[in-house]
Amino acid sequence: MPLLGAFAPESGSFEALVLMLAAALVGAKLLGELCERWRQPAVLGEMVAGVLLGPSVAGLVDPNHPSLHAMAEIGVMILLFHIGLETQLRKLAQVGSAATVVALVGVAVPLGLGFGVAELFGLAQLPALVIGAALTATSVGITARVLADLGRLQDPESQVVLGAAVLDDVIGLIILAVVTAIVAGGTVTAVEVGGITLVAFGFIGAALVLGRLVVPPLFDRLARFAKESSLAMIALMTAFALAVLAQRAGSALIIGAFTAGLVFASTPYAKRIDDGVSRVGQFFVPLFFVSVGASVNVRTLGDSQVLQLGALLCVVAILGKVVAGFAPWWFRGNKLAIGVGMVPRGEVGLIFAQMGLTSGVLDDRLFAALAMMVLVTTFLPPLVLKRLLGEGKGEKGEDAGGAAELVTEI
Amino acid sequence: MPLLGAFAPESGSFEALVLMLAAALVGAKLLGELCERWRQPAVLGEMVAGVLLGPSVAGLVDPNHPSLHAMAEIGVMILLFHIGLETQLRKLAQVGSAATVVALVGVAVPLGLGFGVAELFGLAQLPALVIGAALTATSVGITARVLADLGRLQDPESQVVLGAAVLDDVIGLIILAVVTAIVAGGTVTAVEVGGITLVAFGFIGAALVLGRLVVPPLFDRLARFAKESSLAMIALMTAFALAVLAQRAGSALIIGAFTAGLVFASTPYAKRIDDGVSRVGQFFVPLFFVSVGASVNVRTLGDSQVLQLGALLCVVAILGKVVAGFAPWWFRGNKLAIGVGMVPRGEVGLIFAQMGLTSGVLDDRLFAALAMMVLVTTFLPPLVLKRLLGEGKGEKGEDAGGAAELVTEI
Repeated sequence: MPLLGAFAPESGSFEALVLMLAAALVGAKLLGELCERWRQPAVLGEMVAGVLLGPSVAGLVDPNHPSLHAMAEIGVMILLFHIGLETQLRKLAQVGSAATVVALVGVAVPLGLGFGVAELFGLAQLPALVIGAALTATSVGITARVLADLGRLQDPESQVVLGAAVLDDVIGLIILAVVTAIVAGGTVTAVEVGGITLVAFGFIGAALVLGRLVVPPLFDRLARFAKESSLAMIALMTAFALAVLAQRAGSALIIGAFTAGLVFASTPYAKRIDDGVSRVGQFFVPLFFVSVGASVNVRTLGDSQVLQLGALLCVVAILGKVVAGFAPWWFRGNKLAIGVGMVPRGEVGLIFAQMGLTSGVLDDRLFAALAMMVLVTTFLPPLVLKRLLGEGKGEKGEDAGGAAELVTEI
Repeated sequence: MPLLGAFAPESGSFEALVLMLAAALVGAKLLGELCERWRQPAVLGEMVAGVLLGPSVAGLVDPNHPSLHAMAEIGVMILLFHIGLETQLRKLAQVGSAATVVALVGVAVPLGLGFGVAELFGLAQLPALVIGAALTATSVGITARVLADLGRLQDPESQVVLGAAVLDDVIGLIILAVVTAIVAGGTVTAVEVGGITLVAFGFIGAALVLGRLVVPPLFDRLARFAKESSLAMIALMTAFALAVLAQRAGSALIIGAFTAGLVFASTPYAKRIDDGVSRVGQFFVPLFFVSVGASVNVRTLGDSQVLQLGALLCVVAILGKVVAGFAPWWFRGNKLAIGVGMVPRGEVGLIFAQMGLTSGVLDDRLFAALAMMVLVTTFLPPLVLKRLLGEGKGEKGEDAGGAAELVTEI
């Protein structure tokens, strides 16, 4: 008898939302803490919580609930803003050429191998293309979170991975646009492909130049009377606005949020903003990882043909990115770690798979095989990176209560 | 050209949501800080931001957007949980009888006066009843926030107001149920009225007794391995779950959230939970106050008859609650402050008005008059309380960086 329910808009759905939030966050925090106790990255526990709570197991969390989906998306934006804030552009530029090579090879090889595997299974060109395209993605969110959990965000290897993953997002958008056009039966000209590419890179460049002119004087004035918590919230909202601007300009929300982080990273307020934003992120970011886990339907993995295709896709998905890690021959460092860091497909791979399913190019079983690939490539790297890199001697050790804790906790 | 938009569910709506959040939070923080600079409660600036951003002025924030509405509701739950955490039940019990008298008189007098004014204007019994009922509500959220802004939450007057406001919520639910049944043409038996009453009080009592048995051993175990931020989030989710439980039991979400706060207030983790929850509240709570402001349509206030009825309703709405403040004759303290503290109708009054509008009992102009009453009774008390009580010498002064700041910032 929810008495107020009759008049509040969508109160039934609101009640469902509140219960889902409770299940998602309690599950994420409990399994996340458990993982850390076993010295594994917390993000692993959060995703497992998502799988367990999702529609295919417990059915307590529906990742397609509009408001939960919105909050998970807000979580990705906060995460990318946080990563931008922690990114030292100079370091990223130092590894720029390596990151570019890793990104390009990491797109080309999985695309080719995925297409080949699909043709091997007798699929038509169109579904083979969608499957190949789904293999190109890199989920920067998951890898960045793992690197942060390990206290390794400032290592050169991490910078290469982050740089390449950001480039991958841009390239992924272009591929998605092209593949969508082909699936829709239209033609795509080289001019259009070039245009989409220019817009994405142009947005980041323009936002950085303009942001560095406008933001510092504005925040110097704000800081005279506003509390730190207000500064952090206004900075985060600037990131929200920039995210929408990026999407409207033909790029992606996360590109805008990341760019906003880069802009604020060079101001004297970076640390304080990061502090406030991290606390808000403790609510929103786990919702994203739970949602990614909950999107995986474990039941469709019973079919043997699905398992065979899925297993082969996993192999080429991992191989393709590991090869990419070794591509920048001049780079000194743990190249295997770079390749493994590029492996997670996460939500980006799922977006491709979803596009294939809703457009009718993929059937349920092909979708399941792709989902299996996403599942494995998303779950393995945290475990492997942990062994490859170990706990960071940097941030995490030297300042237990400060920045490192925030990075770990987000 | 939002490329991902074609596949992400409701991406257009998500983009709109992100822009609304940015407008709402930047507006709330800027005007809130401005108010504090002028030594006024920040909540006033947040509501003004809502009115200015709302559909009737700038049209940038739509309080009926499902996800924004959900986040505003989450904001009320976090606020009530926070208030529960800060409430010392012993203090509340000391003022229990005073609070009960204030609540009962504060319901009866406005109900009678409102009904009378409406009949004076020639209205039928049914709309007069709905108008009278709308005058009975007390928005505990707004008053509590003002008291917190002033650092006065622990004063005996504040405890009476909070206790009475919580009782008012319970009584308001009963009145809403009864009026709804009458509007629907059904009959309401005394047994049913008694049942609804018992459920609300029973819920609080049962939750308190059970919670105090179950929560401390559970959190003692959790605290052995979980971070403080995880403890805070799990506690907040317990409040979410209890809120839904309260609603399902026939009471209200905010009753459950408040009760959860009471449960945790008596554990050794209260301070740490409050810390983490306050930070998350800095995102959600202002969304609630902006939404309340945005729900007010200032354009309908041009009609002279609407203005006359609205003005008279304002007078009796304020008079009725001020009289209630003086009702507990034995209570020593600032009785005028108690009465003024009970004046804000806020979202609770709007729920009654909305029910009247959607059921067809009220027309647009009667709704506007009620909205005007809600507007005035919500905006005036912060200004008056500030003069009646002044800045608290307690929390705010003795610990600038600790609890007081959190209370102020939420």
